[in-house]
Amino acid sequence: MASNLLKIGTKIICVGRNYAAHAKELGNAVPKEPVLFMKPTSSYLENGGTIQIPEPCDSLDHEVELAVVIGKKARDVPKATAMDYVGGYALALDMTARELQSVAKSAGLPWTMAKGQDTFTPISSVLSIATVPDPHDLELWLKVDGEPRQQGSTADMIFRIPYLISHISSYMTLFEGDVILTGTPQGVGPVKAGNKVTAGITNLIDVNFNVARRQRHIA
Amino acid sequence: MASNLLKIGTKIICVGRNYAAHAKELGNAVPKEPVLFMKPTSSYLENGGTIQIPEPCDSLDHEVELAVVIGKKARDVPKATAMDYVGGYALALDMTARELQSVAKSAGLPWTMAKGQDTFTPISSVLSIATVPDPHDLELWLKVDGEPRQQGSTADMIFRIPYLISHISSYMTLFEGDVILTGTPQGVGPVKAGNKVTAGITNLIDVNFNVARRQRHIA
Ligand SMILES: [Mg+2]
Ligand SMILES: [Mg+2]
Ligand SMILES: [Mg+2]
Repeated sequence: MASNLLKIGTKIICVGRNYAAHAKELGNAVPKEPVLFMKPTSSYLENGGTIQIPEPCDSLDHEVELAVVIGKKARDVPKATAMDYVGGYALALDMTARELQSVAKSAGLPWTMAKGQDTFTPISSVLSIATVPDPHDLELWLKVDGEPRQQGSTADMIFRIPYLISHISSYMTLFEGDVILTGTPQGVGPVKAGNKVTAGITNLIDVNFNVARRQRHIA
Repeated sequence: MASNLLKIGTKIICVGRNYAAHAKELGNAVPKEPVLFMKPTSSYLENGGTIQIPEPCDSLDHEVELAVVIGKKARDVPKATAMDYVGGYALALDMTARELQSVAKSAGLPWTMAKGQDTFTPISSVLSIATVPDPHDLELWLKVDGEPRQQGSTADMIFRIPYLISHISSYMTLFEGDVILTGTPQGVGPVKAGNKVTAGITNLIDVNFNVARRQRHIA
């Protein structure tokens, strides 16, 4: 059942720079191959939850993205049949500690801590494939405190879903419940403690999240 | 039960440069904080299996490592009680496409494809904590075609297990079955198709793997 998929998944594979306008806004070239990185499923945050900003960050960047949820084991899947492996879709935020990411990039180090901390992947419930007739014709939007920040169409993805599933599954087996975050359109920017984030896929689903400083309970 | 832990885990957190002699052999400084990155659990390979070298690589580097298997949910765990969260240990190889990693590092890009492909994490069965009285006094070894390549003691870890569990759990929740790969001692080097890799923890466990070129079955 689509609603349970996120609970059984074991990985999140993210595509960076998959919208030309977003690649440009961060000063990056449009890639020839997808830029791929991972987030752990421990970073999921359910609708209505609180995004936590950890020290030493003052803010996190929002990146609104279409999540493709895998419906069955996929390995070396050709583009032509790749859509058969989709079990549903969701709206996700790829929250990013941009300063940590910049330091990591400069040092040639992994992005894990900039991308993978708890609450860094707010995500909606899973939409069944029947409710999403064309995943390449969806409007994604995001507001901070009611102000529009991101709005873009999945029509503008550089690497589209069948290609991504085929490409990623040629490197690693995708299992039922695994998620591909397909990249963000332009307009990324910071959220701070006290902000309210709303986001959605127009006419399909919307989500809302609070933002707070992370409280550490370590002894 | 220890033997089932790897099947229920959802992530592998790896520590880079955790032995000073290995950091030096790759020309890296000894880090002040652990360098952390992720591998997907889809990269596990059971004892006796075949490590697959994907195009465009001619070889993969072996990195023999002690795997710490988490026994229960851990978040913001203090060092003093961190060992209570260990459910077992294993011997793992952090196979690395060194050329892909070098290109990624130079470009400030993630290490995911250099570290996370299928069969890139050969791993032994899980040893119960009762059989490992002191995880910081283990000899790790690895041979290629019977020739010694790596031999080192977990006594030489820069960041030790309680610190790693406390540190990592301050960024992300660790779940039962999750794995921390604690880094490799010096002596990393390439394996090629046709090689046989044997590795172990002296007096505790050993594993063996074949190496072959990856066959793609994509249509
Ligand atoms: Mg993103
Ligand atoms: Mg990474
Ligand atoms: Mg390693």
